[in-house]
Amino acid sequence: MDIQGLSASNRHPQDAPYVHKVGLPPKQNLFSEFKATVKETFFADDPLRSFKDQPGSKKFILGLQTVFPILEWGRNYSFAKFRGDLIAGLTIASLCIPQDIGYAKLANLDPQYGLYSSFVPPLIYAFMGSSRDIAIGPVAVVSLLLGTLLQTEIDPVANAEEYRRLAFTATFFAGITQATLGFFRLGFLIDFLSHAAIVGFMSGAAITIALQQLKGFLGIKKFTKKTDIVSVLHSVFASAHHGWNWQTIVIGVSFLSFLLAAKHIGKKNKKLFWVPAIGPLICVIVSTFFVYITRADKEGVQIVRHIKKGINPSSVNQIYFHGDYLLKGVRIGIVAGMVALTEAIAIGRTFAAMKDYQLDGNKEMLALGTMNVVGSMTSCYVATGSFSRSAVNYMAGCRTAVSNIIMAIVVFLTLEFITPLFKYTPNAILAAIIISAVIGLIDFDAVCLIWKIDKFDFVACMGAFFGVVFVSVEIGLLIAVSISFAKILLQVTRPRTAILGNLPRSTVYRNILQYPEAAKVPGVLIVRVDSAIYFSNSNYIKERILRWLVDEDDLVKESGQTKIQFLIVEMSPVTDIDTSGIHALEELYRSLQKREIQLILANPGPVVIDKLHASSFAQLVGEDKDLPHGC
Amino acid sequence: MDIQGLSASNRHPQDAPYVHKVGLPPKQNLFSEFKATVKETFFADDPLRSFKDQPGSKKFILGLQTVFPILEWGRNYSFAKFRGDLIAGLTIASLCIPQDIGYAKLANLDPQYGLYSSFVPPLIYAFMGSSRDIAIGPVAVVSLLLGTLLQTEIDPVANAEEYRRLAFTATFFAGITQATLGFFRLGFLIDFLSHAAIVGFMSGAAITIALQQLKGFLGIKKFTKKTDIVSVLHSVFASAHHGWNWQTIVIGVSFLSFLLAAKHIGKKNKKLFWVPAIGPLICVIVSTFFVYITRADKEGVQIVRHIKKGINPSSVNQIYFHGDYLLKGVRIGIVAGMVALTEAIAIGRTFAAMKDYQLDGNKEMLALGTMNVVGSMTSCYVATGSFSRSAVNYMAGCRTAVSNIIMAIVVFLTLEFITPLFKYTPNAILAAIIISAVIGLIDFDAVCLIWKIDKFDFVACMGAFFGVVFVSVEIGLLIAVSISFAKILLQVTRPRTAILGNLPRSTVYRNILQYPEAAKVPGVLIVRVDSAIYFSNSNYIKERILRWLVDEDDLVKESGQTKIQFLIVEMSPVTDIDTSGIHALEELYRSLQKREIQLILANPGPVVIDKLHASSFAQLVGEDKDLPHGC
Repeated sequence: MDIQGLSASNRHPQDAPYVHKVGLPPKQNLFSEFKATVKETFFADDPLRSFKDQPGSKKFILGLQTVFPILEWGRNYSFAKFRGDLIAGLTIASLCIPQDIGYAKLANLDPQYGLYSSFVPPLIYAFMGSSRDIAIGPVAVVSLLLGTLLQTEIDPVANAEEYRRLAFTATFFAGITQATLGFFRLGFLIDFLSHAAIVGFMSGAAITIALQQLKGFLGIKKFTKKTDIVSVLHSVFASAHHGWNWQTIVIGVSFLSFLLAAKHIGKKNKKLFWVPAIGPLICVIVSTFFVYITRADKEGVQIVRHIKKGINPSSVNQIYFHGDYLLKGVRIGIVAGMVALTEAIAIGRTFAAMKDYQLDGNKEMLALGTMNVVGSMTSCYVATGSFSRSAVNYMAGCRTAVSNIIMAIVVFLTLEFITPLFKYTPNAILAAIIISAVIGLIDFDAVCLIWKIDKFDFVACMGAFFGVVFVSVEIGLLIAVSISFAKILLQVTRPRTAILGNLPRSTVYRNILQYPEAAKVPGVLIVRVDSAIYFSNSNYIKERILRWLVDEDDLVKESGQTKIQFLIVEMSPVTDIDTSGIHALEELYRSLQKREIQLILANPGPVVIDKLHASSFAQLVGEDKDLPHGC
Repeated sequence: MDIQGLSASNRHPQDAPYVHKVGLPPKQNLFSEFKATVKETFFADDPLRSFKDQPGSKKFILGLQTVFPILEWGRNYSFAKFRGDLIAGLTIASLCIPQDIGYAKLANLDPQYGLYSSFVPPLIYAFMGSSRDIAIGPVAVVSLLLGTLLQTEIDPVANAEEYRRLAFTATFFAGITQATLGFFRLGFLIDFLSHAAIVGFMSGAAITIALQQLKGFLGIKKFTKKTDIVSVLHSVFASAHHGWNWQTIVIGVSFLSFLLAAKHIGKKNKKLFWVPAIGPLICVIVSTFFVYITRADKEGVQIVRHIKKGINPSSVNQIYFHGDYLLKGVRIGIVAGMVALTEAIAIGRTFAAMKDYQLDGNKEMLALGTMNVVGSMTSCYVATGSFSRSAVNYMAGCRTAVSNIIMAIVVFLTLEFITPLFKYTPNAILAAIIISAVIGLIDFDAVCLIWKIDKFDFVACMGAFFGVVFVSVEIGLLIAVSISFAKILLQVTRPRTAILGNLPRSTVYRNILQYPEAAKVPGVLIVRVDSAIYFSNSNYIKERILRWLVDEDDLVKESGQTKIQFLIVEMSPVTDIDTSGIHALEELYRSLQKREIQLILANPGPVVIDKLHASSFAQLVGEDKDLPHGC
């Protein structure tokens, strides 16, 4: 049989002009090749596009606008936008104040530190950030993570001062990590945590956080320091007889019911989004007043007792820049910074997609990093974008980051004037507010969808979830990262291959498993390799192709058809090849030669052609044979 | 413009039957899907093929043959084969004896341990290994690696006994590592060290080893323990005035010249392969006799002095199974075991490809692992396949692993009877033998080829090379692994995308950069994504496609053509997609909707279709729109 018979031109002589020689693009020199690779890797989003063909002074202004986007959007700011931002800012402020106080407790810090972290970081972000919808401040998951990581190093009760200093140190290095990733355009590193792993991790963290709230919710005094579900439930039920306080439970349950009802209303009618948003503040006001009137704190209802008045004191001198705690602070900071980053970028991207504007991930990281570095010097702990508050911000009609400024101003006024009023706020209310907030992080629909779409993703999701719930937040995170990496390794070591057949009455060849009507050509085996051929998969690809051949040989023997004489490897999805890949092809060629089968590489891409020519492989196989066309 | 105009059927009405609906393969159930994935991942080479449709007793015999391939090939063993094996075995024995003595010194062990390691491991391998050409024993690179790793833990001179025990412990765990990888079919893990990194690492190690030999070659007494080129050369020239021994240098230089000349002869005329093979033994005999006659050892020529007579003593009790040294032994064992494995598998595959037989990497690892575990109990240190001796074995016409048995018998006789004769062998000769052996590891041609083919590979190669030469063997190895991983990460985060155009007078669409004659269709942008869409690249792909669109819009504006109305994403190379990928597509869809551009997914693969249907995306885009055909 004649191999030329395969080419479409001979099959359909009327289509003679159909034959095209496989294109060989002009050879690039080394420098331009290198430049293109660097650009695609680190500047994939082409951030310098607007700088092109601009005079020097304009470039300077554009550069300034790049670092401080407020200079750009501030010039078009209008009263209409301000109205939206004002309403949104007031709404998220009313939501953030009670949440901040509760989240600070998750991080084992005094309540005012939560408020501090909702004052300085949002202001910095408003100047440097490019998301219009994100609401900045402390968040539940990062607070919990920071709290558990810090308390393994220092006891937060016995050594409160040192604990706080380590918290600022960790915050400082979390900021440095974020800013560094942004500056060196390594933002793509956070893409290595898969969506599924994040869903599992968040759901697990939500359950862990909710369980932690049982302490305040049931009024238990002695509570375990561990976060796994077994220890916590044991701790809860062991104290059932004498440790639960019924007054606390009554307050907690009634206000939690109110909050959940408010949430339900907000979900049913999108216009009533403000009901769940101001619900927490109403709870705090009503319950504080109630406790103050009834003096329920004398009955064992635990209250906040004291929040320091006044805005953020400086904490520059408190950061550890040497000693044992420096390294610990760096380690905790990197972990907390990465998790905070993942959450903020995920939120930013979600809302950017909804309003259709582009978010430069690297610029965003620089903004978040700067905000946390400045925060660590002004008594804040790690702040990031909050899921629940950003959603409220969006629904309340925010237009720009000015809503964060409004929120910061409200927090400032709170710190300056009304913190003493929180004295009688019962802890059970804070617990109820946190529980109702974190319930939203459990995304059951997403888990179902993941199960339906991709089983491997589901394993990653469940691994992270059970790791967090049954062991600890760090282990859950570790499992999430490990499974994500395992998936990447699997992807690069085991690329797919497919046998192609000819679709009847056409010149098109398709996967015969997908198109049952596609017919194999007698005496010819056509294999498509669906990946670049690199050292990590070259051996597998070689052996897999040989296995296809052996399988096919068996079939041929059974049916008594023509023996396989030609093996065509369809290379169009093979975008690149390296030295190991070329070695594997050479070995394949030699194996096939021994079996008297001709190897044909069909339609390789430009990079692959270049490399096949650079090596001696093109000469080995023969120019006319390795470059046919028409598959 | 009508989107149907794009489909080939409307362009060429005479080809009407050309249109095929995109195939949707029968849905697999969860278990069979899982089974297929596991099979492709861990049993890609289909090792159970021969077991299919066999009765139980036959299966047992086949299973036994799988573990001990000698039972299979031994039954067809013939005198003709034995003649080849005998000659090859004697040749590699004559080469291995002097090398073993020298390599043992690289590992800071007494000379007899090198010989021990050429006795037991080759015997075990002959029964369990499936390579016919590999020659087993101690090798230069692993000896050096083991020596440097061990001496950072224990001083080999002051605590010789403990040093030896740690060496056996490391060997034991190297074997366990190898056997475990093989047993759990994780052999693909060694594919993560790229060919280029190995070339660089080996060349660097060769230079480091050659430099180490300057001690014996120049007769220097005080020598640095470091292995980097700066320390070694400083050590060499600092002792130039009083530390060099001219008699030693004369002996060394003359015999090294002889060995290099022999090597040259062997290279020129393949039939004279035995000249370089027995050269070392001749050197040893002549020089030993010469030193014995002239009593040159009294002139400062250092000699071997003492090799213990008798075969391997048991060392079972010497392995550390608890205590501090256990963990250190495990760590060193894992590193040394992986490097030894990489070398052995690379050799095995090379020769298997030359003679066209299949090598089961996992089975091979099990054999190598077992051999090292048994070796560690019989006073051997890590043995593996040697590049130089395997090449000699192949050229001497070996047919089966019996040549290893012959070699082991010769080593046994040597240990039993003639070790005392090595007393007067000058160290300079061993140094000359090692230098002439490791020179072959510097593969300059391969480096040139790597430079020509793939610049990134070249960076990996040079990184490993300079790491070994200027810092240490471990650092070189670390650099090699890191760069290999960086390449994988780059591959999965930055897949290629291409703009397709229609080839004139055809229904085929190709990359317009590769085929300048391919014409874009006005109002339509066709982008091909050349990779599975996973969490690690989903954001990049989305943003890259949007960037193609912006670029295209600019072009269109300049030339005043039809505005882009349709974006076709050619999905045939997209073999898989996960939840993050579907999210990215949804975001892309929404962005395009805002710009009034219709998104069309062309020709997705079976897995992708399944998943698009499982998610709500197929409904979102519309069934008829997401599955056109003909690109």
